[in-house]
Amino acid sequence: MIEITGNTRLYGIVADPVAQVKTPQTMRKVFERRGTDGVLVPMHVPPAGLADLVQAIRSMKNFGGMVVTVPHKTSMVELCDVVTPEALAVGAVNIVRREPDGTLAGDILDGKGFVEGLRQNGFKPEGLTVLLCGAGGAARAIAFALAQAGIRKLSIHNRTQAAAQQILQGINALYPAVETAPGSEDPTGFDLVVNATSLGMRAEDPLPLDASRLSALQAVAEIIMTPKLTPLLEQAQAKGCRIQYGLPMLECQIEMMADFMGVAK
Amino acid sequence: MIEITGNTRLYGIVADPVAQVKTPQTMRKVFERRGTDGVLVPMHVPPAGLADLVQAIRSMKNFGGMVVTVPHKTSMVELCDVVTPEALAVGAVNIVRREPDGTLAGDILDGKGFVEGLRQNGFKPEGLTVLLCGAGGAARAIAFALAQAGIRKLSIHNRTQAAAQQILQGINALYPAVETAPGSEDPTGFDLVVNATSLGMRAEDPLPLDASRLSALQAVAEIIMTPKLTPLLEQAQAKGCRIQYGLPMLECQIEMMADFMGVAK
Repeated sequence: MIEITGNTRLYGIVADPVAQVKTPQTMRKVFERRGTDGVLVPMHVPPAGLADLVQAIRSMKNFGGMVVTVPHKTSMVELCDVVTPEALAVGAVNIVRREPDGTLAGDILDGKGFVEGLRQNGFKPEGLTVLLCGAGGAARAIAFALAQAGIRKLSIHNRTQAAAQQILQGINALYPAVETAPGSEDPTGFDLVVNATSLGMRAEDPLPLDASRLSALQAVAEIIMTPKLTPLLEQAQAKGCRIQYGLPMLECQIEMMADFMGVAK
Repeated sequence: MIEITGNTRLYGIVADPVAQVKTPQTMRKVFERRGTDGVLVPMHVPPAGLADLVQAIRSMKNFGGMVVTVPHKTSMVELCDVVTPEALAVGAVNIVRREPDGTLAGDILDGKGFVEGLRQNGFKPEGLTVLLCGAGGAARAIAFALAQAGIRKLSIHNRTQAAAQQILQGINALYPAVETAPGSEDPTGFDLVVNATSLGMRAEDPLPLDASRLSALQAVAEIIMTPKLTPLLEQAQAKGCRIQYGLPMLECQIEMMADFMGVAK
């Protein structure tokens, strides 16, 4: 483990609550592998304190950047000086880099991490038709990342149709080559089905879609990490579908986060 | 070494520059010995950024406190909500505790660390006559701590008499039992002689006082840490004086700093 000295570069993860985060441990391994003299520490900041934290890190010369998580991802967009087009489209930032002059750049890596997780497991998103369940922050990030990755068609199934429609309109504007259509609980005909809702975290949750209609040629992906094998994945597996667990989305982001914060490889 | 997790309590040392500080390493040993899940990190903040940092840590719920060093000790006094009478008298804060409600309490431990260093080496300050060389921040802190520790008489030798006089007036106001008198480069008659100037850090520096007049019944103390054996201490040793190195003043402060920041013993 790297000894923290006066030369150690400082990174953070800002969250409320913060006790549950695993980023300090996972980022430590990245820093060790890359030979970086850096440390990522938990910063427990409630919503009312976020702007003050942002102001403080602007003048902190040894601060490299920070991971931003619940409940700060949305508010962080306008606190940055520059954000990527993806972060602007999604309306959320989950990683911030501090430039040497104190300006702050933000990006959203949730969707990119999800897509990278697919690729690393041999699922190529190019040309696929996708049914996405959910229209919250994670769904939004995944929708834009899938569109950027070159899927052919996107449908969204969500209880509130308006939220789904809003995402699809955003996709139309940014990625006109992607065909969009409202989705339903019926997964028939889609190459890839993604659960981006929280349904499946609790044992008593209903399924996010009608799993009885899944067939062996389809792939089913989760964003839920605990349990690893959600009821949806279990049923998909029983139907012979290829499945994708929730954890790779997070694992793939760690390296991307280090890259974005300028940690030398 | 303690693994940093989402539960780890955060502490800092704020300085400009910060690369030279040793507090992250020395405090790590204190945390390990006390079984504290905490980490102290360097925070490189220039003077213009100090108020922003202070504002940010008020809302950071897992922030325990910070060590304050050059050039922030003086500015920190009015950024705290409460300071100890010693910090107010000295006009400097070198340790800050964050209370659970976000208020900040400050103290100055330079002088107390010096006195504790004396005690641990068997020098009892009670009843002594002291010649203090220097009238800067360190001298000021040591003067008040020695007065509080019960010395009988204090004289200050400094190039600028006004600065020395100002400290002595402060001592008169707070500790009327301590006799004060202007000092000179002549150490004759003092039980304890303290060098609180930077003279002795460089080989070509003149001595802070007339060492030829030292005698074997006197004790001579330094605040300079490098070199360990300053020319003054070398001559004092040759005269048969008891000597006190500079390092204990800092070493003794580490435990006091941890105590002040509420680190459980």
